[in-house]
Amino acid sequence: MPIPTTPMSTPPAPVPARRKRSQAAAPGVSPVATDTRSTLVPEHWIAAATEVLVDEGIDHVKVDLLATKLNVTRGSFYWHFRDRQDLLRRVLQSWSEATTRQLTRRLETAHTDDPLQQLRDVISLPFRGRAAARAARIELAIRAWARRDAMARQAVDDGDAARLAYHEQIFKALGFDDHEAAMRAFFLYSYEVAESVLSRQGTASQKQQRSAFIERLVRARLP
Amino acid sequence: MPIPTTPMSTPPAPVPARRKRSQAAAPGVSPVATDTRSTLVPEHWIAAATEVLVDEGIDHVKVDLLATKLNVTRGSFYWHFRDRQDLLRRVLQSWSEATTRQLTRRLETAHTDDPLQQLRDVISLPFRGRAAARAARIELAIRAWARRDAMARQAVDDGDAARLAYHEQIFKALGFDDHEAAMRAFFLYSYEVAESVLSRQGTASQKQQRSAFIERLVRARLP
Repeated sequence: MPIPTTPMSTPPAPVPARRKRSQAAAPGVSPVATDTRSTLVPEHWIAAATEVLVDEGIDHVKVDLLATKLNVTRGSFYWHFRDRQDLLRRVLQSWSEATTRQLTRRLETAHTDDPLQQLRDVISLPFRGRAAARAARIELAIRAWARRDAMARQAVDDGDAARLAYHEQIFKALGFDDHEAAMRAFFLYSYEVAESVLSRQGTASQKQQRSAFIERLVRARLP
Repeated sequence: MPIPTTPMSTPPAPVPARRKRSQAAAPGVSPVATDTRSTLVPEHWIAAATEVLVDEGIDHVKVDLLATKLNVTRGSFYWHFRDRQDLLRRVLQSWSEATTRQLTRRLETAHTDDPLQQLRDVISLPFRGRAAARAARIELAIRAWARRDAMARQAVDDGDAARLAYHEQIFKALGFDDHEAAMRAFFLYSYEVAESVLSRQGTASQKQQRSAFIERLVRARLP
């Protein structure tokens, strides 16, 4: 089974041109929360930018505001990034990599000999607690951005295509022919997207029922 | 069959406090495109705000920018609206009314004695040409806004609930029990939402195939 990957290449993270004496964070304390003037890595900027993207939208992701948020000078941004566009590219890349990693891990750990288990794994995705909710919020924010930005749209399209391909593999493994597998993959993925977009429709118990029902429906052989 | 409505009430459009000599637009020319200084009605502002919302996002919907766009003074805005928030409320109300109108028209004209025809009508919704594409773009923009705004979220939630209720009625009319109807309604609506969110996945011909397949799938009796 081919591992779906997003086409976006993954250049190694650039090494900061200058870096002052490294200052280890206290145990249990997030490095971002400490005085990070000297210990910031690109990932701190990417995480902060993603947070602002989710909470306030792409138009609020600005270098000077992020610098203030991270308690560093605006200039230090340029140790890591060419410009704002470069940061935005890395935000998308980070999201794409997380998507790819998730699919890869799923393929490695998942019961490849048991496609029904894989199907259930995929169906339960929207309900995996706070991490899933956080991932869904990031994804919706990136989709909103992608409506008006070609670079974001490309990342989203690639991510969707990779996940659809993974879903398709599951249905083929369940014995459906190529056409049926492609159709069912789209409907199952539609359901997952909708559980995120329509997350405020229905109670937790109704969502459980939907989740059980979708499994029966996408496995149903049509007359 | 109850007509699903959005709970948002519909106060009559306020009459402009002052209005200069009415100036009829040339035939075939949109009134917005003419010198509208003297003929602007609230709907012009609402349409302009909706356009900016779709093209640039909610943060760019600003009274002074809209006034420039409409070629009128900023002050004339206050003939029609209390403030920006009031305009935003009317943008949502206008969208909600369009949603309700669409459902009502569907109930009136649709073959209420032929639920299968109603089902096909709903399934073909995402593919109704430019008007449908425009409606989808507005809706996605409002969904993006609703991620960060309680008032927009309420409008979106109400619209989703109304349409889910309509879908449910169709499945009941097709002979499914309440539980089955609710489940299938969610699944079918998921598909419609996804054809909008995932509109870049698949060719026109594949979309046709998905559309034909979903009809078979949501009508299938489960073992």
